[in-house]
Amino acid sequence: MWETLAPIGRVASGGYRRFAWTPVDAVLREWFASEALARGLELVTDRAGNQWAWWGAPTPDRPGVVVGSHLDSVPDGGGFDGPLGVVSAFCAVDLLRSHGFEPARPVGVACFGDEEGARFGVACAGSRLLTGALSAGRGLALTDGDGVAMATAMRSAGIDPSTVGRDDDALRTVGAFVELHVEQGRGLVDLGRPVAVGSSILAHGRWRLDLVGEANHAGTTRIEDRRDPMIDLAAAVTTARSAATARGCVATVGKIAVVPNGVNAIPSGVTAWLDARGDAARALAADVGHAARTEPVEESYTPDIRFDATLVTRLARLLDDAPVLGTGAGHDAGILAAAGVPAAMLFVRNPTGVSHSPSEHAEREDCLAGVDALAAVIADLAG
Amino acid sequence: MWETLAPIGRVASGGYRRFAWTPVDAVLREWFASEALARGLELVTDRAGNQWAWWGAPTPDRPGVVVGSHLDSVPDGGGFDGPLGVVSAFCAVDLLRSHGFEPARPVGVACFGDEEGARFGVACAGSRLLTGALSAGRGLALTDGDGVAMATAMRSAGIDPSTVGRDDDALRTVGAFVELHVEQGRGLVDLGRPVAVGSSILAHGRWRLDLVGEANHAGTTRIEDRRDPMIDLAAAVTTARSAATARGCVATVGKIAVVPNGVNAIPSGVTAWLDARGDAARALAADVGHAARTEPVEESYTPDIRFDATLVTRLARLLDDAPVLGTGAGHDAGILAAAGVPAAMLFVRNPTGVSHSPSEHAEREDCLAGVDALAAVIADLAG
Repeated sequence: MWETLAPIGRVASGGYRRFAWTPVDAVLREWFASEALARGLELVTDRAGNQWAWWGAPTPDRPGVVVGSHLDSVPDGGGFDGPLGVVSAFCAVDLLRSHGFEPARPVGVACFGDEEGARFGVACAGSRLLTGALSAGRGLALTDGDGVAMATAMRSAGIDPSTVGRDDDALRTVGAFVELHVEQGRGLVDLGRPVAVGSSILAHGRWRLDLVGEANHAGTTRIEDRRDPMIDLAAAVTTARSAATARGCVATVGKIAVVPNGVNAIPSGVTAWLDARGDAARALAADVGHAARTEPVEESYTPDIRFDATLVTRLARLLDDAPVLGTGAGHDAGILAAAGVPAAMLFVRNPTGVSHSPSEHAEREDCLAGVDALAAVIADLAG
Repeated sequence: MWETLAPIGRVASGGYRRFAWTPVDAVLREWFASEALARGLELVTDRAGNQWAWWGAPTPDRPGVVVGSHLDSVPDGGGFDGPLGVVSAFCAVDLLRSHGFEPARPVGVACFGDEEGARFGVACAGSRLLTGALSAGRGLALTDGDGVAMATAMRSAGIDPSTVGRDDDALRTVGAFVELHVEQGRGLVDLGRPVAVGSSILAHGRWRLDLVGEANHAGTTRIEDRRDPMIDLAAAVTTARSAATARGCVATVGKIAVVPNGVNAIPSGVTAWLDARGDAARALAADVGHAARTEPVEESYTPDIRFDATLVTRLARLLDDAPVLGTGAGHDAGILAAAGVPAAMLFVRNPTGVSHSPSEHAEREDCLAGVDALAAVIADLAG
């Protein structure tokens, strides 16, 4: 499967640019559909555009055990964040079938759309639209860097935006959701184990900082006459760092847009995005806004999430007392958990801890251990 | 003339995006050629691609009096910076002819290419290539944001890059050069005068700062494990401002490129450009590099320039003791002056001082006073 998946959306950096509702995204969706078809799984696309491949038909009375993740990426992201969970899900189905396993409940492989939020700025947009955590009105009106609305992007990808909204029919088919993901940290390296069970996700918010200045000539405008928004940007970056340490959070300014972005022009405006995670993320955003003399616009906020305790304990026990780890990264499993779906995660060891980078990696052996673990989880929950 | 010129390269901001060797640039060049043709002026394009419209044929023994400026713009620049000098030059020719003036020496209207350096990063590239201040080898190898080399861009605009280099034949045709320009400051507002004579240009350099980090996940990477180049950017911006005040310069970080520029990714790299002007500009760039932990790459540097003192005095006296002002902005007149051409400038009042912005403006009355002044200068020098 990696052979056909790996080239899709790969760029010169060696990383990926797989953004929601783009032509590259359409190729990824076709890839998922053809993998489902090859296994005789029934493909369902929910109203938010997420894909589900079913082994056995779920009903509200007989919901399925779902595994999977996402295929989209951050700009120049790695090849494992997302795809490892989808590929491992199909592999686990293959493994169970090769052992003659007959599920007592339907088994689903899910692929959520727009998990990274790289294009429209809201992470886990596919699962948020599905659960209603993101309203259709707000989600569809989000625009990308070229001003294209999500509704327009969906329509050009063949999805009818008018039906988007909390999809109870789809949610009722999910009895449990277990998302396998490459670890985004070095917890398993330190523990010397290949697979962990995820227990919780830090609170996570994104804020937009609109820094307003006055465009003027870089050579002729006196320092005291300047209104240069780059000065406010510097204050935002510096404060994000110091407040993160002070408040026990992590905070990042990773995306910036400068207008007009000319060497010899004082900018008329700078837009910066703040990503902050931890219990005090909102207080941190306020600190940053104060320093940068602007009111941060909250584009998304998800409180901290604890996965289903019974499920977490059961999986850890099943997997030879696998370590139980929290994470600072958001995931669709967290969105489903917040919506009341029993959910948990499996993490596969990442030798460097690096993620959201072309150098993101997992060893083949650890990936196979992940498939074994996922197959064991399905067998346990759907057996 | 404004009617046909104004729509070319105008964007939604109300400003202009007129960059060297683009299709928009080609339309500007056609506009210049048609204005020359309409007046029966002989159009010459020099080896660097600068355009000259001659009223009378210059020879090395009988060089001309040249007036003019440029038509390209910074991103979202105003409509006056450059075009006012070209339009006023044609208007001055018309005015002199309507008075029956017969020049004793050839009169030229010049339009220099790529003055702003918005695409390839080197300001006054057209006049620098003409005089050899920028070598053909270095200039043609400059690349734009898409990696297109200047040589390639020139070739696709129909200019043969193989002949680019110091063009002595063209330079010998210029006996004197007077560039009219909208003032980029409030000097004339404070003095209550419509037109000034330019005396000098501050030393001016541009440096590129390559800030290197390590791409990683914004949510899972501990603060102490981060190598985030945005922190170095903040230090660069803050130091540019403080060092400008301390060293009596102006300094601006107006252009930034972030890789990968994702909300939830610690950047792998940030490139920032520093524009600094004043006698201590190089020392300032070193301060900034030190603060941002990088070696600034000097993309251009022009020492301070004093225009021909005899010419400046003569013009000021001619124009009713016009005020004599220096400027922090670079101009083609400065490049020609540095190459030994007797050169000077005229500035037209700017009511707000704002330039390099869609709100750049000059009153009609003041523009007409500029045309009168330019006609008087031509009559004096070529009469």
